[in-house]
Amino acid sequence: MEITKLVPKKKQGLVVVLTGHGKGKTTSAMGMALRSAGHGLHVSIIQFMKGDIYTGEWDGVKLLGDLVELHATGKGFCGIQGNPYPHAEHRRNAQQALLLVDEKIRSGLYQVLILDEINNALDLNLVDLNQVLDILKKRPPEMHLILTGREAHPEIVARADTVSEVREIKHAYRKDIEPQPGIDY
Amino acid sequence: MEITKLVPKKKQGLVVVLTGHGKGKTTSAMGMALRSAGHGLHVSIIQFMKGDIYTGEWDGVKLLGDLVELHATGKGFCGIQGNPYPHAEHRRNAQQALLLVDEKIRSGLYQVLILDEINNALDLNLVDLNQVLDILKKRPPEMHLILTGREAHPEIVARADTVSEVREIKHAYRKDIEPQPGIDY
Repeated sequence: MEITKLVPKKKQGLVVVLTGHGKGKTTSAMGMALRSAGHGLHVSIIQFMKGDIYTGEWDGVKLLGDLVELHATGKGFCGIQGNPYPHAEHRRNAQQALLLVDEKIRSGLYQVLILDEINNALDLNLVDLNQVLDILKKRPPEMHLILTGREAHPEIVARADTVSEVREIKHAYRKDIEPQPGIDY
Repeated sequence: MEITKLVPKKKQGLVVVLTGHGKGKTTSAMGMALRSAGHGLHVSIIQFMKGDIYTGEWDGVKLLGDLVELHATGKGFCGIQGNPYPHAEHRRNAQQALLLVDEKIRSGLYQVLILDEINNALDLNLVDLNQVLDILKKRPPEMHLILTGREAHPEIVARADTVSEVREIKHAYRKDIEPQPGIDY
C-alpha cells in the first residue's frame, strides 16, 4: 500500500477554537503542537492563567526540541476556590501575556500560535474582546491560531474556521478519582 | 509564586473515551501522549484503520524519543468514498491490530495505551464489542487506556472514567478549505 502525502494547493492559516466543559481542549491543542512539530512547523504556546500547577506538557514540549516553546504566564484560575490572587493581578498577568502574543506574531518565526485558556481569560475580563479580535486581525494569513478554553465568545466563534465544543459526558473527578499525571495534567 | 506539583495519593489507570463528530479526538489523544512523555511515562499508540495517509504525528512522536511509539495498522477508513479495500480486509487488519494491543498490554512496558479510532472500528464491525471489553478487563489497573473515534459504544462509555463528546460547531472543510498540515493531519 502506498502512503498518500497530502499537500494543500493553498496554504492557509486556520483559526481553531476549542471550547466546552469537557476534557480535551488544552489536550487537543498540545496534540496539534506535536503534529505540527512532526511537519517541522514552529509552534509557540502561550498559556493564560496557568502557571501555578505543574503539568506534563511543560516538559513534554521540551522533548520536541526547538520547534515548540511554551510560556505559562499566569497564576492559576482566577476566582476559583483556593486561588489567592485578586482579579487585578490576574488581569495584569493576562495583559502582559498579550504583549508576548504580539511579540510572537511580529517575530515571524512561528507558523502555529496556541493561546491556551484565552477564551476563559476573555470570559473573566482578564483580556478584552477587542484585544482578542485584534490578534485575529494581526495574524499573518498563513499562521494558524488556536484558542482554547471554556465559554468561547460568539464573536470569536463567528470568525473562526474550525470550532469544536468538547462536552463532558462524564469525568473521573466526579467519582472522586484524583487527577492523574499524563492524563489530567 | 511557588509551583504546585500534584502527586495523587492513589495512582489509578483511567479509561478515557473521546468521541463525537468534531475535530479534537485523535488530536487530544496525541496531547495526552505528549503530556505523558513529559512525566516520563511510556506510551504506545495503536491506530486502527489509519495508515494510508501521512499525518504529522507519525514524525511528531519520534521527537519524543523512546517514550512514545506509534503503529498505524490500517488501510484507510473502511467504506468511505475512494477507499478500495473490502470490509474483510479492513477487518483482518483490525484483528491483527488487536493482537498487537494484547502484546503491548502483556509486555508491561507501557503506562499509557492509546487505541486511536477503535470506537469507529467497533462501529464498523472491524472488531467486536467483546474484544474491546476484553481489553478493558485485561488492562492492568494502573494502565491508562484512551479510546478515540466516532460512535463510541454505550457499553464502553458505561465502563469509562472520563468521556468527552467533541461536537462540531463548524469545520474549515465545509468552507472548502483543504486540510492543512499541523492542524488537520
